[in-house]
Amino acid sequence: MTSPTTVDTANAAATSAAGNREALEPSSPVAVFGHDEPLHLDAGIDLAPFQLAYNTYGALNADRSNAILVCHALTGDHYAASQSPVTGKPGWWSSIIGPGKPIDTDRYFVICSNVIGGCLGSTGPASINAETGEPYGLSLPVITIRDMVRAQKMLVERLGIDTLFAVIGGSMGGMQVLQWTVSYPDKVFAALPIATGARHSAQNIAFHEVGRQAVMADPDWAAGRYLLQGKRPVKGLAVARMTAHVTYLSELALQRKFGRNLQDREAFGFGFDADFQIESYLRHQGMTFVDRFDANSYLYMTRAMDYFDIAADYGGSLARAFQGSQTRFCLVSFSSDWLFPTDENRAVVHALNAAAASVSFVEIETDRGHDAFLLDEPHFFDAIDGFVSSAARARGLSR
Amino acid sequence: MTSPTTVDTANAAATSAAGNREALEPSSPVAVFGHDEPLHLDAGIDLAPFQLAYNTYGALNADRSNAILVCHALTGDHYAASQSPVTGKPGWWSSIIGPGKPIDTDRYFVICSNVIGGCLGSTGPASINAETGEPYGLSLPVITIRDMVRAQKMLVERLGIDTLFAVIGGSMGGMQVLQWTVSYPDKVFAALPIATGARHSAQNIAFHEVGRQAVMADPDWAAGRYLLQGKRPVKGLAVARMTAHVTYLSELALQRKFGRNLQDREAFGFGFDADFQIESYLRHQGMTFVDRFDANSYLYMTRAMDYFDIAADYGGSLARAFQGSQTRFCLVSFSSDWLFPTDENRAVVHALNAAAASVSFVEIETDRGHDAFLLDEPHFFDAIDGFVSSAARARGLSR
Repeated sequence: MTSPTTVDTANAAATSAAGNREALEPSSPVAVFGHDEPLHLDAGIDLAPFQLAYNTYGALNADRSNAILVCHALTGDHYAASQSPVTGKPGWWSSIIGPGKPIDTDRYFVICSNVIGGCLGSTGPASINAETGEPYGLSLPVITIRDMVRAQKMLVERLGIDTLFAVIGGSMGGMQVLQWTVSYPDKVFAALPIATGARHSAQNIAFHEVGRQAVMADPDWAAGRYLLQGKRPVKGLAVARMTAHVTYLSELALQRKFGRNLQDREAFGFGFDADFQIESYLRHQGMTFVDRFDANSYLYMTRAMDYFDIAADYGGSLARAFQGSQTRFCLVSFSSDWLFPTDENRAVVHALNAAAASVSFVEIETDRGHDAFLLDEPHFFDAIDGFVSSAARARGLSR
Repeated sequence: MTSPTTVDTANAAATSAAGNREALEPSSPVAVFGHDEPLHLDAGIDLAPFQLAYNTYGALNADRSNAILVCHALTGDHYAASQSPVTGKPGWWSSIIGPGKPIDTDRYFVICSNVIGGCLGSTGPASINAETGEPYGLSLPVITIRDMVRAQKMLVERLGIDTLFAVIGGSMGGMQVLQWTVSYPDKVFAALPIATGARHSAQNIAFHEVGRQAVMADPDWAAGRYLLQGKRPVKGLAVARMTAHVTYLSELALQRKFGRNLQDREAFGFGFDADFQIESYLRHQGMTFVDRFDANSYLYMTRAMDYFDIAADYGGSLARAFQGSQTRFCLVSFSSDWLFPTDENRAVVHALNAAAASVSFVEIETDRGHDAFLLDEPHFFDAIDGFVSSAARARGLSR
């Protein structure tokens, strides 16, 4: 086995886009893949060189059998269980990953990498294309979920791991989990796809398209070449984020949390400032998002999700995709998630049943919508804990 | 009684905004209200002069008891049953209004006016403010649903009608129907609020706010003064329309109609053109909308809906709003409408029951979402027909 080849933060910074603010540079290990190790993209192009920024938590055991790959969602990053240097906030799954937590870093070696196409340290549209010396922008080929997984596989191999004990993720992360089990069925012992589906629905594509159009309508997007012009399409990206954010919550949660409450006022302002708390909240979500995310990356991430359709790669049969799978599956859905309703998750379960795979399924009752997978949901934590512990016993991982 | 005072198309054109294209001028009667008849707005301002463009279908009977006011939705107009001169399309409710149709113009005198704040002939932000000689833009006070109804009341009176046989409308039109029964309870014999609610929910406000932000993010919006600068924020308005359009349909309808079908191609384009049919469809919806609607009017219409909350005017009690009502109500909801779900309609029914009002309620089973009230839905037509006919008998309207 080769020892992990990483470059330090300074090198990583040197390869990322001019025009990106310093705060966007990774403070994490970065795996660089050279021209001898290109990434074969679904677009039919080999991407080289490229890099993946990642973090690890816990220690790899002697027989390298305790590795869990955590896959992040649309706008997530590899700071799953450590403070993000960009936002200063705790890792997005700090509640789940850590010593004694459902993904117990005293027992497991957890890997989380920024996806290819992302903007938090891995090669993406804001990265410098070595051939031109300019940011890729839209010249970066469109990335698919399968491409993300292919890149992760290369990282996992470089870390000296042959088989992952588990792959876990929610939303777009859950798509990656499913893709792992289909692309590399004998490399995944257990899989936990959460709040996801085997394809993106027409309604989900519709909302993504609205977001993309909002970005591309902003003149500061400049046909994707904004970094070269020292601009950023912050208004368009904020609108895209606001639209998406509504879909991450449930109607009931919005009603409970905000209702028709006014923001810092007793009566309507009879104008177009934020009268309602929900308006302030959304504006805040939009404004803070543009500080941490690259607009072109947003286009690439949403496109990857839209293209995702596992059955399409198997003649329209989802069951065929999973045929012969030895992976243990546990699917989790949230009752009020209208982006990936329980029925979408159940369709995957039915396909896994038809493929005679080992599968369990939990629907968590909550009114918090799609975002529930990122929130404190005790029954959800229990489900992860139970499934991972049981899989660990089956895998022969000692406590 | 005074005979209706109307001005012809030429005069109407003269009072509307410079910079608006000719196609936006009304080819309908216009009622002008002068300084002696101001519109008392909820914003605390008297608007004068102002005008309402309207159309009528059928004939008023001798005792003026057969008038039906039809109220249009967010982006509708007064061409309810006649070809729109702007789009060249048949009236938006031509399937329902006409000789022998559920709203039978052989029996009833149908009135439909463009709402105040609109952009299809009635005074709105694109209209010229006589005091400045410039379009109002954002200097027009924010309009409420109650203001719209107040203006309609003035029009109805000018047409020599004391009591309306019925007020009918869907979505924002349904809000106006409810407001009529509360503002002028003894002037409405029968009310048919369709696919609506007694208030706008947090989620609905959220989607409207996204649309407004999309418009206002467009630099061509120019802080609302785009007409003066010869610009129009078409990109922002198109994004707003696309967002809204997704909410008008149901997930099932989108899946059935478009699914993941590709547009004029066999495989993914690996780019950001419209790969999926749903993307082309939405882009088309956005592009055609900006040809027929004024961006500032869109802000005003969405704001009016957001502010709507009947119970708030009655100490939080919806039942109190309807106390003593002698109006006959029929509420209609559509099972797949997620903007105004059946529960929202049912809440109005419960309040009417609590107020001991006469009320019937029909939920139409359909997968076509909120837009179902504009589509061919035989059971819906039957419900309207049944209720209107029954109310006509009670009103003593002979066939």
